[in-house]
Amino acid sequence: MSSDFGKNVKISLFGQSHSKAIGVVLDGLPAGEKIDMEKVLDFMARRRPGGSDYVTQRREADKPVILSGLVEGVTCGAPLAVMIENTDTRSQDYDNLRYVPRPSHADYPAFVKHGGFNDIRGGGHFSGRLTAPLCFAGAVCKQILERRGVSVGVHVASIASIKDSPFDPVNLKKEDLLSAGQKAFPTNDDKAGREMVNQIKAAAKDRDSVGGIVECGAIGLPVGLGAPMFDGVENRLTSAIFGIPAVRGVEFGAGFEAAAMRGSEHNDPYYFEGDKVKSFTNNHGGILGGMTTGMPLIFRVAFKPTSSIGKEQKSVDLIKKEDSKLKIVGRHDPCIVPRAAVVVEAVTAAVLLDWLL
Amino acid sequence: MSSDFGKNVKISLFGQSHSKAIGVVLDGLPAGEKIDMEKVLDFMARRRPGGSDYVTQRREADKPVILSGLVEGVTCGAPLAVMIENTDTRSQDYDNLRYVPRPSHADYPAFVKHGGFNDIRGGGHFSGRLTAPLCFAGAVCKQILERRGVSVGVHVASIASIKDSPFDPVNLKKEDLLSAGQKAFPTNDDKAGREMVNQIKAAAKDRDSVGGIVECGAIGLPVGLGAPMFDGVENRLTSAIFGIPAVRGVEFGAGFEAAAMRGSEHNDPYYFEGDKVKSFTNNHGGILGGMTTGMPLIFRVAFKPTSSIGKEQKSVDLIKKEDSKLKIVGRHDPCIVPRAAVVVEAVTAAVLLDWLL
Amino acid sequence: MSSDFGKNVKISLFGQSHSKAIGVVLDGLPAGEKIDMEKVLDFMARRRPGGSDYVTQRREADKPVILSGLVEGVTCGAPLAVMIENTDTRSQDYDNLRYVPRPSHADYPAFVKHGGFNDIRGGGHFSGRLTAPLCFAGAVCKQILERRGVSVGVHVASIASIKDSPFDPVNLKKEDLLSAGQKAFPTNDDKAGREMVNQIKAAAKDRDSVGGIVECGAIGLPVGLGAPMFDGVENRLTSAIFGIPAVRGVEFGAGFEAAAMRGSEHNDPYYFEGDKVKSFTNNHGGILGGMTTGMPLIFRVAFKPTSSIGKEQKSVDLIKKEDSKLKIVGRHDPCIVPRAAVVVEAVTAAVLLDWLL
Amino acid sequence: MSSDFGKNVKISLFGQSHSKAIGVVLDGLPAGEKIDMEKVLDFMARRRPGGSDYVTQRREADKPVILSGLVEGVTCGAPLAVMIENTDTRSQDYDNLRYVPRPSHADYPAFVKHGGFNDIRGGGHFSGRLTAPLCFAGAVCKQILERRGVSVGVHVASIASIKDSPFDPVNLKKEDLLSAGQKAFPTNDDKAGREMVNQIKAAAKDRDSVGGIVECGAIGLPVGLGAPMFDGVENRLTSAIFGIPAVRGVEFGAGFEAAAMRGSEHNDPYYFEGDKVKSFTNNHGGILGGMTTGMPLIFRVAFKPTSSIGKEQKSVDLIKKEDSKLKIVGRHDPCIVPRAAVVVEAVTAAVLLDWLL
Repeated sequence: MSSDFGKNVKISLFGQSHSKAIGVVLDGLPAGEKIDMEKVLDFMARRRPGGSDYVTQRREADKPVILSGLVEGVTCGAPLAVMIENTDTRSQDYDNLRYVPRPSHADYPAFVKHGGFNDIRGGGHFSGRLTAPLCFAGAVCKQILERRGVSVGVHVASIASIKDSPFDPVNLKKEDLLSAGQKAFPTNDDKAGREMVNQIKAAAKDRDSVGGIVECGAIGLPVGLGAPMFDGVENRLTSAIFGIPAVRGVEFGAGFEAAAMRGSEHNDPYYFEGDKVKSFTNNHGGILGGMTTGMPLIFRVAFKPTSSIGKEQKSVDLIKKEDSKLKIVGRHDPCIVPRAAVVVEAVTAAVLLDWLL
Repeated sequence: MSSDFGKNVKISLFGQSHSKAIGVVLDGLPAGEKIDMEKVLDFMARRRPGGSDYVTQRREADKPVILSGLVEGVTCGAPLAVMIENTDTRSQDYDNLRYVPRPSHADYPAFVKHGGFNDIRGGGHFSGRLTAPLCFAGAVCKQILERRGVSVGVHVASIASIKDSPFDPVNLKKEDLLSAGQKAFPTNDDKAGREMVNQIKAAAKDRDSVGGIVECGAIGLPVGLGAPMFDGVENRLTSAIFGIPAVRGVEFGAGFEAAAMRGSEHNDPYYFEGDKVKSFTNNHGGILGGMTTGMPLIFRVAFKPTSSIGKEQKSVDLIKKEDSKLKIVGRHDPCIVPRAAVVVEAVTAAVLLDWLL
Repeated sequence: MSSDFGKNVKISLFGQSHSKAIGVVLDGLPAGEKIDMEKVLDFMARRRPGGSDYVTQRREADKPVILSGLVEGVTCGAPLAVMIENTDTRSQDYDNLRYVPRPSHADYPAFVKHGGFNDIRGGGHFSGRLTAPLCFAGAVCKQILERRGVSVGVHVASIASIKDSPFDPVNLKKEDLLSAGQKAFPTNDDKAGREMVNQIKAAAKDRDSVGGIVECGAIGLPVGLGAPMFDGVENRLTSAIFGIPAVRGVEFGAGFEAAAMRGSEHNDPYYFEGDKVKSFTNNHGGILGGMTTGMPLIFRVAFKPTSSIGKEQKSVDLIKKEDSKLKIVGRHDPCIVPRAAVVVEAVTAAVLLDWLL
Repeated sequence: MSSDFGKNVKISLFGQSHSKAIGVVLDGLPAGEKIDMEKVLDFMARRRPGGSDYVTQRREADKPVILSGLVEGVTCGAPLAVMIENTDTRSQDYDNLRYVPRPSHADYPAFVKHGGFNDIRGGGHFSGRLTAPLCFAGAVCKQILERRGVSVGVHVASIASIKDSPFDPVNLKKEDLLSAGQKAFPTNDDKAGREMVNQIKAAAKDRDSVGGIVECGAIGLPVGLGAPMFDGVENRLTSAIFGIPAVRGVEFGAGFEAAAMRGSEHNDPYYFEGDKVKSFTNNHGGILGGMTTGMPLIFRVAFKPTSSIGKEQKSVDLIKKEDSKLKIVGRHDPCIVPRAAVVVEAVTAAVLLDWLL
């Protein structure tokens, strides 16, 4: 009921962090699309933890097993279903959390909503691990989008107080759009990236975490995609983006800064470049009235610091009905932002493909 | 297809700025709810232009005519339909805009999407005027919510560089929540409100406009309302909020500031107050994992400066296919934020009622 | 929540039999479609009561007032909203029905569902009168379909035991498809029509009513429209058709008779006619696996006899909680089938346009 | 896009007849429901082929593997995902069908819709095999319904010209409702069942097939479940039922026979039995105005004869664009009705649970 999104291409996630498998069903993909599985795995690898010293030490093969929907690597019009088996789970890490909700996690409202029956192990269905099949879905959608001339890219715009240089909102070239995604740490500016890693390491050393902002761009979109009011590009995109764990805000174009601007400053005047209508500036982020304008789509997503931290925290015991303390011992990213960036890219690709079809 | 929202209570808008009427259909309201029409009109009056010197001089009676759905003032389970006739229209103001799109308006993508057949007069279906029936819908939903113990309120959090004092996110009292809405200019701090009016007047004098931020709060919500992932409270709320013209960003709780925080600082530790679970802080804005926590729901919405300004602007002639200039002569708000605040309150009431039922 | 249907073109009805107005909103119509209002009125006139001696004596101007969505008679991409004012209402006819549910009407379950707050006058929102705006919607959709080469037609296939000659399921010509709809009583065979009228008059004389079957056909549909499983042509069509009051069954092609056939008899073998694939027979009714085959779409809809009859009937008093008797004194059709046929045509046009866009 | 149904409990199928696996995701089940897997397997066994001499010789273990959604056999609020691996596939049987569509199968429109990329092996996604996971879903929903006092049952009402005795529509007892489902051949009347088997054997001997009708009943439903117009019980039920392969018609209560009845004969008068409102007859099949009346829900579904028959048939070669002949050599049921009956029961359980929640 709440684990799917999309209208023409419906993407439906299943699984819990410690269930037998997690997975995704994509219903509505056009038939006849060759899916390059190497590229899919490359994309998923960008999200995967392990290796580096600033992400969780949980190691997952994250190998997607295609259950249906492809015939000799080509979509056949039937739902594309894939599962990823859960192998490296340490459920005992969660024994002490069953009735003591972790601050800023979904534990407490989920306990109330599901009468205590929700799967608490590894965050259950709320786990960031569910973003692995979501990235599979995004990787597939990206290939189909690319074939139609649409590219999507992301970079980490900030971590703590460190800022990356933004995408050029007016003349965004494909190589600049995709550049950060190919780096070990996805920033436009490598120096900013190194400083961000230092911030993350510093937080980890303190058994703490940090948040950050992801900027996403898309180019090659036709003009007039979308619809006004309640079901346009921003509506569907933000609705899906808020499905990514830890998102606290979304802004398009000039975003919250627009609130302090004058109209004469914020408005984007038009001109003809050949027979194409362009705007000199792009404070509108490529969308007006819920519809694409042909200018690059630009938006930013704010992520809170990882809620699971090693420091002792105050909480409550929901059974004993008394105040309690809590120490989280699992393996957790001190900063999920670089991995979340890939998920933003995946979700954006899915939503844009949904609009294009 | 895009002019409605809601799942249990479906709200569907119709009308253009200069069509015979605008209106709204609410399908799914519970039967047996008495609707106090005086209160509805009071709420709508908060959005209505006219009178003051900082809003558009267009005057609309905005008198809602009930077409169906009420029997002796009580909902009967059938769709509640209402229309508001358009009386004070000056279509000639728009003659020069037919093929010269206004910067930062929906004109250009709408022209492409609808092949030039869209109604340009007064902004057509994209007009802010459509928020009048939306406020009718919100006023009805607010009454039904109040009967169930849920209150929604707003204030203008900032205009240009002037900031209002925020809602108390932890101990938000009903009188504080509703206070700003009862003022001529809806701020918590009257001095900030007067400075904001000055900013707006200054912009108006320059034939320019300013943007701002609206903060919305809701109290009395039960714990565990909503759902995880793609169809929770944030998803549906942001999706609907982006249906309000001029919205550029939405953030919950600490929002974009969370991106610069450490987890130990951002996490909201729990404690028992009597038999109720509360958190000492409320950086999560009352929602975790797409579900309500029982703490006040707090979010902010960024509005860009009004796109229609009196200054001459660069644009293009879509028929002659050449660069052009444009001067907008209609009646326009130099700042839509105080009126948009009421719309945010209306949409929030509608989405929360949808969840409650 | 339940008064709309359609995905690309959403059709939303409002109104009760005795409210100020009834109406419909069509959201998602393509822009640039000229609507011939004379043709719309002609189509609606086919459904309208009055005049003849076998339909209700209630007279309604049924004049649709366009509220929005058209600019100089052409769709503009905004929702097309229309209202029809209720003028000839005699609410006092219903005073005795408030707590004594009419057998085979929705009164009793509606009383329970809406806690007694439902509008009982004239059937309220459940009234057959709501099919007037539905016919407006269908008339608009038919014009847009015709422009795309698709025609929809109906005839009364049976009343009581009298049967009309069926549509030719294999070689259905446009003039044969549309012929019955232009007659005072919509049958293919005029003699059958006269006998049906006699059956209806006989029932009316007995203060009773009769049921019947409507056959609907559509030609000009492309091959492969629709989708398999739960959201194909049959699914959406039957779901919408069951929204018409008094429908008790729907069957496609050979329908229930197929249940008694052998596969070798029922299967429709293919052949090439020029470069087009056709089938020698059309027991499948133009749909296989939820998708159109290019053969005429053929289906039948069973209507029960009008539930409102002049004879005294047994019922219960829901307040006194005792058995009761009931005599219905309002004006009612002894047979709604000829009028319902027009509604079937309207709904079918709406669903097919939804698929085509 | 078309492989799912349900609003509160969303059921999404995936898989092709010859893909690695088929499966289903149930999203929205209440948490805390214990699922008896033995009972699920028993229910699925009722649908499974093999053994008897009147069903396909394809043998499938049909062993469902739970991927997620259960914790120690209890629903946890996360989507319940299950897969069934395909093991006994003979793809070579379908080599001759790639471009020569089987009459009355979805092959031809699917070829056009999917540009020839659809998976033809074993019927691909259109295969009756997809009803195995659908039965899993139904079995789970049935257990949750039973816990809420609602029972669903079916019997084969007719095969060819042989008719079973119908369910008692007025006083339907639970043991009578469930009786047929526990028999090897699901009829109320054993003698009718034996004759039906003879009819099926006779068809099989002729390398032909036969159709039939399934009657479904449900008891224990509350009054007022559903909604009027386009999204009531009949709408959702028929829409889902038409997702079952080979369905050609659906009728409620007296169904098509109602068309030949007088109102005085068809109307179901009410009376009080204790404090419960009942009707003396049940021609309305337990639904009025899209809402349940508390009387047994009764409807019938017509199934065409199996399209795959051993006899040579006329068809076309879609590549050579010429007339062709076709002989189907796979393993096929001469009559799918007894197995389809179980699927009708499953789908009905799913739709009713969706309404109850």
